Amino acid sequence: MILAPYLLFLGDAPDALAAKVAQGIRDWRPEASVGQLRLPGCQADMGLPEMTVAQGVAAGAKTLVIGVANRGGFISDAWIAVLREALEAGMDIASGLHNLLRDVPELVEVAAANGRVLHDVRVPSVQYPIANGVRRAGKRCLAIGTDCSVGKMYTGIAMEREMLERGMKATFRATGQTGILITGGGVPLDAVIADFMAGAVEYLTPDNEPDHWDLIEGQGSLFHASYSGVTMALVHGGQPDALILCHEPTRPHMRGLPDYQLPSLHDVHEVGLRLARVVNPACEVVGVSVNTAALDGAEALACLAVIETEMGLPTVDPFRQGAGRLVDALG
Amino acid sequence: MILAPYLLFLGDAPDALAAKVAQGIRDWRPEASVGQLRLPGCQADMGLPEMTVAQGVAAGAKTLVIGVANRGGFISDAWIAVLREALEAGMDIASGLHNLLRDVPELVEVAAANGRVLHDVRVPSVQYPIANGVRRAGKRCLAIGTDCSVGKMYTGIAMEREMLERGMKATFRATGQTGILITGGGVPLDAVIADFMAGAVEYLTPDNEPDHWDLIEGQGSLFHASYSGVTMALVHGGQPDALILCHEPTRPHMRGLPDYQLPSLHDVHEVGLRLARVVNPACEVVGVSVNTAALDGAEALACLAVIETEMGLPTVDPFRQGAGRLVDALG
Repeated sequence: MILAPYLLFLGDAPDALAAKVAQGIRDWRPEASVGQLRLPGCQADMGLPEMTVAQGVAAGAKTLVIGVANRGGFISDAWIAVLREALEAGMDIASGLHNLLRDVPELVEVAAANGRVLHDVRVPSVQYPIANGVRRAGKRCLAIGTDCSVGKMYTGIAMEREMLERGMKATFRATGQTGILITGGGVPLDAVIADFMAGAVEYLTPDNEPDHWDLIEGQGSLFHASYSGVTMALVHGGQPDALILCHEPTRPHMRGLPDYQLPSLHDVHEVGLRLARVVNPACEVVGVSVNTAALDGAEALACLAVIETEMGLPTVDPFRQGAGRLVDALG
Repeated sequence: MILAPYLLFLGDAPDALAAKVAQGIRDWRPEASVGQLRLPGCQADMGLPEMTVAQGVAAGAKTLVIGVANRGGFISDAWIAVLREALEAGMDIASGLHNLLRDVPELVEVAAANGRVLHDVRVPSVQYPIANGVRRAGKRCLAIGTDCSVGKMYTGIAMEREMLERGMKATFRATGQTGILITGGGVPLDAVIADFMAGAVEYLTPDNEPDHWDLIEGQGSLFHASYSGVTMALVHGGQPDALILCHEPTRPHMRGLPDYQLPSLHDVHEVGLRLARVVNPACEVVGVSVNTAALDGAEALACLAVIETEMGLPTVDPFRQGAGRLVDALG
């Protein structure tokens, strides 16, 4: 478990996009961060109080979270000095970088000497089981998409937020690095060994109270040539009662695959539901979540209206409009 | 690359099934093995000449292949003595066991001292890329099934055999432990990290001559709750031109999943083809391969006839009848 609250390390982020992990934490768990720590030249800003390591510790920070991906994913000397200082001051460190904290001998040594933990959230820390497909109690909702990075994580978190505000029982279940850093736990599914993917999802979403909903973070797309196997494991391991279709209406081709057009929402509906019913015959597609960030307000409303008519399902941009109608649709 | 010919180590196999890896090699690559080495109490027999390590080396064996899975998958002391002797006599060792040769310090030490190689074929030896979905030259045929262990590997190897006999260009591409030990190479797909599964299949089946066929070993099933993600990666990474549907007609439920019925061949046809066409719009389902080992001759013929009529596709048991009609169907 990654201990909160956090001090968000933005490093020398050249722009806001480089700090999108920090942005996700800031957007979705603003109360989790006591402040931000920026190095000279940093162009990202979460609008949090500027703090040194010492100030962060004084403000109660338990973990320094690396909220930035630097060029090439490596951990620079300028960073090491700060990370080292954080460990010595009593903080753990959490990172979703490809290059692992545990592969930096200096950090391993300083962490051990100070009894601190290095969380490389991209690496599974559990030996997951093979999936057994046994019917579980409780309800599960999974976001599936026409592509990668179309808003599946935001949809799940927004629904959890709405449900908790209504007094419903709900838990967002993170399956990617940013989601794990936002919530403090989860399964880094893209790093799990093939045979154990669906089992990892079962592990993440165990038996629960009959009226409890797990909101499972989706990954990839059943139609994405690179990552569809991961999506499939979510559909079968997740045993969903409800599917939400996620879409980004302005994308010219599948992310990273210039030769591939996006599937239609109808395609995703049909194939996703058919595969989900293998493990849960009662599964239904209940709504559509559209990321309209690239559209202005009027365009967004028009786009949502067209899709709602075409699909015959509640269609919202949860970031813009809230997830109320999607939660209503869970029934 | 695993060097042939092999000496097949059957250990103290309690029955024939325990030695199914050796049986696969014996069935499909009989010329690859100079003999068999059995310990006292061994109940499996490949009908090969009985040899000691020294006799195997004298007969030209380059690799001792562990053709047996013992109880619990561990490597017993009785085995270690033989494996050590093989390394000292100049043979490499190849194993598909869950427990790895490389985790036995004594074997690592003796192999290093003698300049020999320990092949743990269950562990990927390559850093596979992320799949890019780019259209590749050459043709590819993939076996997909109603379940695990319904004859997908045998179908692929039988088709390769038939095609080579006809003077066609064909290569069986192994994706599982037994297939890798039969052919000497391949990708242990179930042990690959999730994000790289489809890329591993692309790596395994690269650009080739326009009239060359890769026969890709299938794994799992799109309808198997535990392993469907692996199957999906084969469908999208394999970019198949042709699909063969594989089935075992007497199975009471999905392998390892007592609550799950097998899908129909129509289900597998429809979902498999739809997903394959994401990466290759020209893909077709060309035939059905049925494992009739549990039926007598008349029952088998009747079963094949019923399925052939129902599916409208050439339907054979390639082990019983040869794969000629499946190869014809490739066009």
